[in-house]
Amino acid sequence: MVFCAVALGAAAQNSFPAETNIRGAKYPQITSDSRAIFKVKAPEVQKLQLDLGKKSDMVKNSEGVWEVTTDSLSEGFHYYSLIVDGVAICDPASETFYGMSRMASGIEVPFAGDDYYAVKDVPHGDIRIKRYFSEVTKSWRNFYLYTPPGYDQNINDKYPVLYIMHGGGEDQRGWATQGKTDLIIDNLIAEKKAVPMLVVMVDGNMPSSGFGMEALNVFENELKKSVIPFVESNYRVKADSKNRALAGLSMGGLQTLHAGVRNTDLFAYLGVFSSGWWSNNNELSGPQYDFMKNNAVTINKNLKQFWIAMGGKEDIAWQNCQAMMGKFDEMNIKYTYSEYSGGHTWPVWRNNLFNFAQLLFK
Amino acid sequence: MVFCAVALGAAAQNSFPAETNIRGAKYPQITSDSRAIFKVKAPEVQKLQLDLGKKSDMVKNSEGVWEVTTDSLSEGFHYYSLIVDGVAICDPASETFYGMSRMASGIEVPFAGDDYYAVKDVPHGDIRIKRYFSEVTKSWRNFYLYTPPGYDQNINDKYPVLYIMHGGGEDQRGWATQGKTDLIIDNLIAEKKAVPMLVVMVDGNMPSSGFGMEALNVFENELKKSVIPFVESNYRVKADSKNRALAGLSMGGLQTLHAGVRNTDLFAYLGVFSSGWWSNNNELSGPQYDFMKNNAVTINKNLKQFWIAMGGKEDIAWQNCQAMMGKFDEMNIKYTYSEYSGGHTWPVWRNNLFNFAQLLFK
Repeated sequence: MVFCAVALGAAAQNSFPAETNIRGAKYPQITSDSRAIFKVKAPEVQKLQLDLGKKSDMVKNSEGVWEVTTDSLSEGFHYYSLIVDGVAICDPASETFYGMSRMASGIEVPFAGDDYYAVKDVPHGDIRIKRYFSEVTKSWRNFYLYTPPGYDQNINDKYPVLYIMHGGGEDQRGWATQGKTDLIIDNLIAEKKAVPMLVVMVDGNMPSSGFGMEALNVFENELKKSVIPFVESNYRVKADSKNRALAGLSMGGLQTLHAGVRNTDLFAYLGVFSSGWWSNNNELSGPQYDFMKNNAVTINKNLKQFWIAMGGKEDIAWQNCQAMMGKFDEMNIKYTYSEYSGGHTWPVWRNNLFNFAQLLFK
Repeated sequence: MVFCAVALGAAAQNSFPAETNIRGAKYPQITSDSRAIFKVKAPEVQKLQLDLGKKSDMVKNSEGVWEVTTDSLSEGFHYYSLIVDGVAICDPASETFYGMSRMASGIEVPFAGDDYYAVKDVPHGDIRIKRYFSEVTKSWRNFYLYTPPGYDQNINDKYPVLYIMHGGGEDQRGWATQGKTDLIIDNLIAEKKAVPMLVVMVDGNMPSSGFGMEALNVFENELKKSVIPFVESNYRVKADSKNRALAGLSMGGLQTLHAGVRNTDLFAYLGVFSSGWWSNNNELSGPQYDFMKNNAVTINKNLKQFWIAMGGKEDIAWQNCQAMMGKFDEMNIKYTYSEYSGGHTWPVWRNNLFNFAQLLFK
């Protein structure tokens, strides 16, 4: 017991504020063994919990400061909330990230191997926020756009484009902030592991929400009739299927499976992260499989990569994905499958982008 | 009384969700007479208040929904918080905005005359987020950058640059989000009331915080040795004083007064919004006035505009600003003064940018 107390004391001395904190916020802190220490001053509050996937009670001291130290956390970015008397709120000490269909707190946990999205002394691209009018939704929308280092200078060069989608309850900001897309691609380009490309972070939220055929068709229209034509007429990009890729996570993976598979004349590369058609709902997944079965030859011929990735067995999409790949095997649809453990979370999707981007446009 | 109840009922029918809400959030709503209706479900909470500059108690109904309707609100963007059992938090229904040194909620109130920052069918520029390494602070920092419509296409054109700073407790995101800089400049350019320009939204937060001479000197160094050289070597800009402007609000106004007045060989246009040297602290303001007195001839000769604006008498910087202009008069420092009522708030600063931008680079 004495040893344990000493060890805890030593760990606490090595803790430091999380990079996801707002400027100057001392807490939450991360210890050298990846635990997180949360402290919140709220003397009048009766009950305070931390919700980091599972809920933990926080304990109030005599000065009204609530505290909890977590178990060792897994790598990378995690959404979290404080629960004040039953209401899930943002931690005032954290930056906010659109997820869970609202602005949420986030905590970044460093780990051995996070170097691939570290800020390094390499050329950096820009993240742009671009407004456009959609004739499909009849409304102003925006996307986030990564342009690679040199885009402004190399005015005679044209670039390939990866179109990428966030998950449900998120939006076009997801890949730019939670996903660290710019750093991942900057570093890959600097090491010549990826070719310079634009990455268009699409807003996948359509007026008709949900995952049914109608919502998916509206998304497909928005992509084909609004986003891609706008990008190709406003930026210096190569406009053929060999220079277009489409990818997405979770809900964005379904959008990729729908809009990508139906349009392999437009996209030679598809990336499906933590997703899969419903294994228990033939009404929704049946028409998708019917299309694929009827077009298996074309799909196989057109796609240079049909890349499917899963966050291990702990990923909530695991079962759907395995069932879907079984169907693909029956239909002789070619694909590549990979796993990276971590479940249905951003650390997995960052790693997916890191690996998928290296396969593109070569 | 009957008439009143009917009128209120009619107004409520015309209320609509605020544009600052997260997607799909039905509340807060704005009525046709600019009142705001807040509703928050929190059955277990004991006390809930709305803090919109002043605090109002919310009232809980039998379903656990707390509600309050405000008096008529003034135009434009306002920060707000919910106070749950004494803790100021973000409203889960609102987008978040960095202000008050944390992520805060915001509510946008439409008004007759807000057309100048409406999203119109005109060419739109980009907002870019740009990472750079500062040799002054020895750290990675970023700025937000507006590039005007045509910047990507007109590859032989060079543009003038407005460098602009946020207030205390805010950061480089302030002018891009709360300030609607892109829409204001897009619309002015479309009407040929402003010339196409870049707007660099600088992060004015320095490692040595505060408003003393040391912090101001570090900011001046960051601007001169990091930001401006980086912009001028990475973007197509005109690099002479006639094509550089510097402006800022509140703390950013002090930074403009310090770094701008000391460098009129670099900037021909200065904009000081809701700011002024301390009228009650000669230790801090004395050296500033001494510099100006000793350099009045140069300052007057170099500046094409020294534009000072105040949010009416209700602006917390009113007294300092009036005292400062009295000193300027004594020293024969030339300036232009204007007022727009609304106090120390973003609606005033949007209007300041709208007017100041029309004076630049002509």
